Amino acid sequence: MARIAYLGPEGTFTEAALLKMCAGGVVPGGSSDTQPQPTDSTPAALAAVRNGAADFACVPIENSIEGTVLPTLDSLATGSPLQVYAELTLDVCFSIVVRDGHDRDSVRTVAAFPIAAAQIRRWLATHLPEAVLVPANSNAAAAQEVAAGRADAGVSTALAAQRYGLSTVADGVVDEPNARTRFVLVGRPGTPPARTGADRTSVVLRIDNTPGALVSAMTEFGIRDIDLTRIESRPTRLELGTYVFFLDCVGHIDDSAVAEALKALHRRCADVRYLGSWPTESATGAIPPQLDEADRWLARLREGDPT
Amino acid sequence: MARIAYLGPEGTFTEAALLKMCAGGVVPGGSSDTQPQPTDSTPAALAAVRNGAADFACVPIENSIEGTVLPTLDSLATGSPLQVYAELTLDVCFSIVVRDGHDRDSVRTVAAFPIAAAQIRRWLATHLPEAVLVPANSNAAAAQEVAAGRADAGVSTALAAQRYGLSTVADGVVDEPNARTRFVLVGRPGTPPARTGADRTSVVLRIDNTPGALVSAMTEFGIRDIDLTRIESRPTRLELGTYVFFLDCVGHIDDSAVAEALKALHRRCADVRYLGSWPTESATGAIPPQLDEADRWLARLREGDPT
Amino acid sequence: MARIAYLGPEGTFTEAALLKMCAGGVVPGGSSDTQPQPTDSTPAALAAVRNGAADFACVPIENSIEGTVLPTLDSLATGSPLQVYAELTLDVCFSIVVRDGHDRDSVRTVAAFPIAAAQIRRWLATHLPEAVLVPANSNAAAAQEVAAGRADAGVSTALAAQRYGLSTVADGVVDEPNARTRFVLVGRPGTPPARTGADRTSVVLRIDNTPGALVSAMTEFGIRDIDLTRIESRPTRLELGTYVFFLDCVGHIDDSAVAEALKALHRRCADVRYLGSWPTESATGAIPPQLDEADRWLARLREGDPT
Amino acid sequence: MARIAYLGPEGTFTEAALLKMCAGGVVPGGSSDTQPQPTDSTPAALAAVRNGAADFACVPIENSIEGTVLPTLDSLATGSPLQVYAELTLDVCFSIVVRDGHDRDSVRTVAAFPIAAAQIRRWLATHLPEAVLVPANSNAAAAQEVAAGRADAGVSTALAAQRYGLSTVADGVVDEPNARTRFVLVGRPGTPPARTGADRTSVVLRIDNTPGALVSAMTEFGIRDIDLTRIESRPTRLELGTYVFFLDCVGHIDDSAVAEALKALHRRCADVRYLGSWPTESATGAIPPQLDEADRWLARLREGDPT
Repeated sequence: MARIAYLGPEGTFTEAALLKMCAGGVVPGGSSDTQPQPTDSTPAALAAVRNGAADFACVPIENSIEGTVLPTLDSLATGSPLQVYAELTLDVCFSIVVRDGHDRDSVRTVAAFPIAAAQIRRWLATHLPEAVLVPANSNAAAAQEVAAGRADAGVSTALAAQRYGLSTVADGVVDEPNARTRFVLVGRPGTPPARTGADRTSVVLRIDNTPGALVSAMTEFGIRDIDLTRIESRPTRLELGTYVFFLDCVGHIDDSAVAEALKALHRRCADVRYLGSWPTESATGAIPPQLDEADRWLARLREGDPT
Repeated sequence: MARIAYLGPEGTFTEAALLKMCAGGVVPGGSSDTQPQPTDSTPAALAAVRNGAADFACVPIENSIEGTVLPTLDSLATGSPLQVYAELTLDVCFSIVVRDGHDRDSVRTVAAFPIAAAQIRRWLATHLPEAVLVPANSNAAAAQEVAAGRADAGVSTALAAQRYGLSTVADGVVDEPNARTRFVLVGRPGTPPARTGADRTSVVLRIDNTPGALVSAMTEFGIRDIDLTRIESRPTRLELGTYVFFLDCVGHIDDSAVAEALKALHRRCADVRYLGSWPTESATGAIPPQLDEADRWLARLREGDPT
Repeated sequence: MARIAYLGPEGTFTEAALLKMCAGGVVPGGSSDTQPQPTDSTPAALAAVRNGAADFACVPIENSIEGTVLPTLDSLATGSPLQVYAELTLDVCFSIVVRDGHDRDSVRTVAAFPIAAAQIRRWLATHLPEAVLVPANSNAAAAQEVAAGRADAGVSTALAAQRYGLSTVADGVVDEPNARTRFVLVGRPGTPPARTGADRTSVVLRIDNTPGALVSAMTEFGIRDIDLTRIESRPTRLELGTYVFFLDCVGHIDDSAVAEALKALHRRCADVRYLGSWPTESATGAIPPQLDEADRWLARLREGDPT
Repeated sequence: MARIAYLGPEGTFTEAALLKMCAGGVVPGGSSDTQPQPTDSTPAALAAVRNGAADFACVPIENSIEGTVLPTLDSLATGSPLQVYAELTLDVCFSIVVRDGHDRDSVRTVAAFPIAAAQIRRWLATHLPEAVLVPANSNAAAAQEVAAGRADAGVSTALAAQRYGLSTVADGVVDEPNARTRFVLVGRPGTPPARTGADRTSVVLRIDNTPGALVSAMTEFGIRDIDLTRIESRPTRLELGTYVFFLDCVGHIDDSAVAEALKALHRRCADVRYLGSWPTESATGAIPPQLDEADRWLARLREGDPT
């Protein structure tokens, strides 16, 4: 049974992602028998994996509106090594939850996590123009406020409605239709999932801040026609003038071109932390060139057959 | 008189940054007579500049814990062009505000913007372990809650204490000592501030997603020994498979090396949006090589004097 | 009156090239009044320019069969600086010269410079199969042998026939139809001839032999889309492990892209020797990108007009 | 018994190189029993290997004064593939040969290949100032002229003196003390000699003449810290605007870095012709980085052990 830590309480988007991952069978070990474990924060979920309290953690890593989830990245970049095994992208859309028997007309107060309230400001102005906003501590907490009778409605998730026995008066509520969050399933280091042909590989590079050092590192991908899909730079707080770079590329450690690039980085950079290779549903960019033909050509050369 | 939009209400960190910028004399036009104008959001502040309702906007662009402020970047990257004229970095630290005559012992409830509460969780657990957290809609709103008597204390700013006639029972409150936010002063396009020798230049590149295109663009900086200090990639939502890159480098458009690099990018990229060159107090990385000697050498060659 | 040194004696291919250059008006100063001065060797011709005994030298620099004329290159690369002002390419084809009144049937002996004999071996085997080869010290010397009656025929040049009062029994004699020699007109450093749009620029680089140093230097051309048309590496004999590189590119020192690249090399290399920019009749490769539009764009940015 | 073709007649520098190679045991197959076969020209020697008339050819490839031996390069670059198995560098110095019983004082005429005469012009002017030069068709032919009594002395080789039963009145005659010729032993394609740690690898690239294509190809070496020791560009005569590049690098096809670079070139270039990997006595430049440690690191990553 795989124990999977996530940002709780029950009913968060993260729990929704986790349940969908489990249903999709992407948890290593093939275990269909999983045990979600809510934690206080994303770093706490990753710490649970590191100290053995959990086998995996499901954490958000990137949001199309807010960008990278820095606490996740920072936690992956330092401490004992962790590895990503799977990813899942959820549309971010809210459910407006009420207690059974209530409807939209009876709503006078709406509990909402302020970030969520900001993301559906236009919807609220249009559909609940008279309602007073009551701040809540999280999307799940907004549902708890409703369940406890301290607010008439809450900006929450479909999963939370179910968890706290509430009804929804609106689903799929968003102002910005492209809001999406990508979640990853993180474990201790292990054999990466098999290459599927639509994979993502992720590394963290620690580079001395000589001008051009990052360009040189990126050239190791570019010259091999490997497509970089994410580049993010962060100053390290450990040493002045050093940076950490998070790079995602299309491809798998078992693609020869990716393997070559990883080795070159290992040789070139102060430190390379491999965050894993895993299947991706949202591959943009071309897959790395396959070197099988070149491998065969080289093997023939070594045998004196230059055809 | 320069009208400067900012994320309100009165008492936010952004207003504090704005006041410090005004005091520092960095507002173009040399005007010491400035009129702050609170807005609902950061994009609204930038929109006010675009439509002429304000002359400048003061907006956060980067936070050492949360990372890039994406709504600011996204708003700078699209719409009619804007330009950065100045920057200012503030330590993010909170003040615990109370009504006059109250002290820490009498605090039973603490109003806090949930993000702020999360950032000083350890401080609250240590110094106000019994207090109940009451969510507020912003740091300034937390002070307003206290002023209105709906909470005993608030997690807010020194400026808000002053604005709303409150006392502080603790200042400089942080869990993570390196939390800092960088703010920029944005206006409509104009002549950049004069080169100081410690400058930052910023561009937004729209690049066709051919493998290696970003590497080629970055090489235009690297080969000229220009130090890149920030690299951030964002998918555009306009066309599938295209990316936008935000690059900051050390140097000024009036550094020959930077001018050469900008021209090369203009030739190479689908689009280059120049976000300005301005003085920076926190320059990391070497200043670009000065080409004066090479310019003189070239001029001599053209006159037949190869010495 | 321009004094022009060349590899003598009278009648060499080099003299033929020189006369054609004079007729073409490419000698700087516009002087139509030129005075050819034969010398013993190509280095001697260049030495005459250096010590003021001549104003210019006409020397071979490249042959399509034999390749680069290394004594010319080596002499240009060291010693006091020289500069190329013009070039001219001649088809290498021989004339078979005899004394007046003789014809092919009466030829029993053929004087020939051994290199020339080797280049028309097939022609001789076909057309003069019975003739005995008599080695001569140069193509012009072969004509002198005929004039002196020491050989019946000579493998020489049309110009030599004229100079020594001989007839030709065959002209345009070649085995390999593409044999061509490129000659250059070399003087002391001066203002380069005006840009024509079909120009060649040449430099000699002295580079420390760190791996990748030459690649970096060449990247200065490649990244600016400047086409390199010749690359030749030579170990220097001065310091162990250092190399000299001869690079020719398409373009003129007054092309902005070429000027940028030259400045970058000046900054990057141990030494850059500029050999000149001059019109070429045989331009291969695209002319460098014109940066005028980018220059105007940059000028507008500096004035706050990002259109 | 290995049949080895070379530029004859007997007594040339090439034969001297060939004999030294045989004595050094570098002929593949370990055969100490070799049969030299003189040919008319260097291309003829290579043709003999191609058509099976010889097993190997010994040919000059580079001279420190004259540069690359283009007929050798051009013949290696086209036609059916050939491969280099060994190299040997000879100091170029001449012997002045006479018939037995003669000495320097009795010399009135000196037979010399004109190229050789030019290379020792100063020596002749000093030591035989009165002698008349008689042109000969090759260095070996100069010895034959002496043997036949048609000249008193000859500019030739120590080997030729021995072959034609002559004495020498001077050995080691040179004007330029660093003159050296490198010879290579060429055969049909086969397994390269084993890696020694001081090896040279050579390729011929056919590259489309897009600006930057050569730079890209060279970057495949540079980025892997492989040292290029020779770069030569030649226009192909087959297609207008295409070039052929001859590149030598330090290292062996069995060095991982070199193997990677070869595969990358195979993928990138219109054509890559592998000319072999063989031991070199005159290695300049660092040997390629050894990737064993990186290989082990990668293998560990694949097993989930990121230490």
